[in-house]
Amino acid sequence: MTEVFSSLDTYDVRFPTSLHLDGSDAMNPVPDYSAAYLVLRTSAGREGFGLTFTAGRGNDVQVAAIRALAPLVVGRPVEAVLENMAAFSRSLIGDSQLRWLGPEKGVIHMAASAVINAVWDLAARSAGKPLWKLLADLSPEQLVAQVDFRYLRDAITEDEALRLLTAARDGREAREEQLLSRGYPAYTTTPGWLGYDDEKLARLSKQAVEDGFGLIKLKVGANLADDIRRLSIAREAVGPDVLVAVDANQSWGVGQAIEWMGRLRPFQPYWIEEPTSPDDVLGHAAVRKAVAPIKVATGEHVQNAVVFKQLLQAQALDVVQIDACRVGGVNENIAILLLAAKFGVPVCPHAGGVGLCEMVQHLAMFDYLAVSGTWEGRMIEYVDHLHEHFVDPVRIQRGRYLAPLAPGAGARMRPESVAAYLYPDGSQWRNRQVSTAPAQL
Amino acid sequence: MTEVFSSLDTYDVRFPTSLHLDGSDAMNPVPDYSAAYLVLRTSAGREGFGLTFTAGRGNDVQVAAIRALAPLVVGRPVEAVLENMAAFSRSLIGDSQLRWLGPEKGVIHMAASAVINAVWDLAARSAGKPLWKLLADLSPEQLVAQVDFRYLRDAITEDEALRLLTAARDGREAREEQLLSRGYPAYTTTPGWLGYDDEKLARLSKQAVEDGFGLIKLKVGANLADDIRRLSIAREAVGPDVLVAVDANQSWGVGQAIEWMGRLRPFQPYWIEEPTSPDDVLGHAAVRKAVAPIKVATGEHVQNAVVFKQLLQAQALDVVQIDACRVGGVNENIAILLLAAKFGVPVCPHAGGVGLCEMVQHLAMFDYLAVSGTWEGRMIEYVDHLHEHFVDPVRIQRGRYLAPLAPGAGARMRPESVAAYLYPDGSQWRNRQVSTAPAQL
Repeated sequence: MTEVFSSLDTYDVRFPTSLHLDGSDAMNPVPDYSAAYLVLRTSAGREGFGLTFTAGRGNDVQVAAIRALAPLVVGRPVEAVLENMAAFSRSLIGDSQLRWLGPEKGVIHMAASAVINAVWDLAARSAGKPLWKLLADLSPEQLVAQVDFRYLRDAITEDEALRLLTAARDGREAREEQLLSRGYPAYTTTPGWLGYDDEKLARLSKQAVEDGFGLIKLKVGANLADDIRRLSIAREAVGPDVLVAVDANQSWGVGQAIEWMGRLRPFQPYWIEEPTSPDDVLGHAAVRKAVAPIKVATGEHVQNAVVFKQLLQAQALDVVQIDACRVGGVNENIAILLLAAKFGVPVCPHAGGVGLCEMVQHLAMFDYLAVSGTWEGRMIEYVDHLHEHFVDPVRIQRGRYLAPLAPGAGARMRPESVAAYLYPDGSQWRNRQVSTAPAQL
Repeated sequence: MTEVFSSLDTYDVRFPTSLHLDGSDAMNPVPDYSAAYLVLRTSAGREGFGLTFTAGRGNDVQVAAIRALAPLVVGRPVEAVLENMAAFSRSLIGDSQLRWLGPEKGVIHMAASAVINAVWDLAARSAGKPLWKLLADLSPEQLVAQVDFRYLRDAITEDEALRLLTAARDGREAREEQLLSRGYPAYTTTPGWLGYDDEKLARLSKQAVEDGFGLIKLKVGANLADDIRRLSIAREAVGPDVLVAVDANQSWGVGQAIEWMGRLRPFQPYWIEEPTSPDDVLGHAAVRKAVAPIKVATGEHVQNAVVFKQLLQAQALDVVQIDACRVGGVNENIAILLLAAKFGVPVCPHAGGVGLCEMVQHLAMFDYLAVSGTWEGRMIEYVDHLHEHFVDPVRIQRGRYLAPLAPGAGARMRPESVAAYLYPDGSQWRNRQVSTAPAQL
């Protein structure tokens, strides 16, 4: 009997983070960090786990989108899929009817991402390797074959990618030793949520320095006077040697971003993240030109590799912030890592959400070993909540991510967490009223 | 008692168009044209109708997204919403948790569009006017107030929009007479679906000329030899005086688009539509530069006004193809019409789908009366199927859209059609197996 994918089960899992304003920013004052979670099983009993992170309301829509992909997966022979993940990705992302819902963006693309990542998780578990290691052990030719170059060749061709990956084999073993002994650099967003008061901001900022982080990030963009006050507090708390980045979460227009950052310039912010709409390539280019030497960072809402390509072509970015769940899964993230390496722009992954730290660390470590070959100027975001719900939670030591050693891609949640936080019937939700009441009414 | 929105009902309506390959193109060989349809009711018995067009599979996901917006609508006072449609739009599009699913793109944005359009439909019905007339009768100040300028001011400010709209008042009455007596120019896509054989292509092309259309459109991009043969057939059928546009439906990369269009150049295509990814602003600019004087058109998959803004800023487009259901409804389409007018680029709406002709004609006619003030170089797409399912179907005469006179925005479907084509339990679906089996398996 050929082994086939036999089931794809979905779960609407939500955490009531709005109770403590964890994750609060200028555009999302009261998020309930959530996961549209999926478990993929095969007829031989193998499993893979994937998820899409969401901010609460709408997690059910994301679950519906993942379910809509099930007929494209269930019944399919497992080995044939694993042997050609690029073709599998294309079959989900390019489905002739479903692609109208995107194409390659938003709910339907994130659903494809969750499924593709679950299959990679299954592949890594089967190989007995963490995903970073599975990917780094692929040959340059195998890696190039993972990528759909259709819309990317005007920025990077298959041949260029192959040369780049071949060159990155130099020193790979020494880097793996470094990674295993020291871990990968991290920065922390924990002190800087907009909903935290000044005392909590100061305390957590000092704590971050004690914990060994070299950069902290503050949410800005709701009120200029508050931003100036909070930046002063943070700068005083961390001292002159620790970097402070700021994140506007898309709250500004182009002109407004330039003006506002002019006012924050005295506090030497390291980067401004999401100054404006994530769709505005030309806008980011204008902001970058105007606010230099402050760096411009974006990516958590960048919908796909075509937009990253343009951000790089237009010299609109200093920092590429990949997200494990937003674009079309591991395959499209390999494309984005290749583009960033080609343009020489560092990748500092986004990880503020449920399971994002657990997942994206694999991509950054793979990049260090096999694509860019460096961690200079690179850090993975770290946020210290909700890790307890994962079977293999991230391990942070002295401001660095220790390389995960367990097989898989990181998305597997603890069954008891899934049961307790299942929305709306899990034990943690039955007696609450948080997520369903929109603020506007 | 204050009148409130009392219910928002959704319907998964699908038509088995794949049986005859109506609507077939290079990226979507077998679509089942569908509508995620909604009926909005108030406590005083008023009604509004809206829909999102989809290509079949995934219509249920779109329905789920519209449902997810219901708590933001039901219970809200109707007059307060109608008095500030911009604020209403923002409350749906900017919902702090739901926006993670976009933001402002894909499934969740199209859901907002359907709801916003339904409220405009209700407003037009209440005023006893067709939507084009309701909009054209608003003052320049009222129109400017419909638009969210946050991300647009680097291309057009409120003041510029106001000047433009004020200038367009000149000659408005004469244009309304012209519109009512002659109708608005149209072009037809009916002959050119990729799944039609050569005989059908020739016959329908001739028919289009006899019917008075000045432009026909052919799907291309799957096979170069086929494209050359089909273009020759169409050109011979229509003669030298009728324009022939081609549409690649995103099937090419940038370099490939330039090369392929080089081969089609001898047949003098009027425009190339969707040469590459709709997200690729810089790619469209490169294609436009290379294929001139062939025009570049796009828009049916352009996700929002921010991307249209950049396409115009980068001089990447000769023809702006708005869609009534893709962006955030009437309000965002007003923004796009203003941008197009500011940059002097003609708008030729997309209408290949269910109900798109019925809806988008209102926007083109409003543009003619109150924004661009001209129909030079402008045409609304026309496709001659599925109109019988609408209460107020479009009326085409001698290649022109007659101005609709019935109150409303056009999306209202016949109840018996909704019942019969309801998926999967309507009488037209119960004994079929078309839409659920994906091609990849």
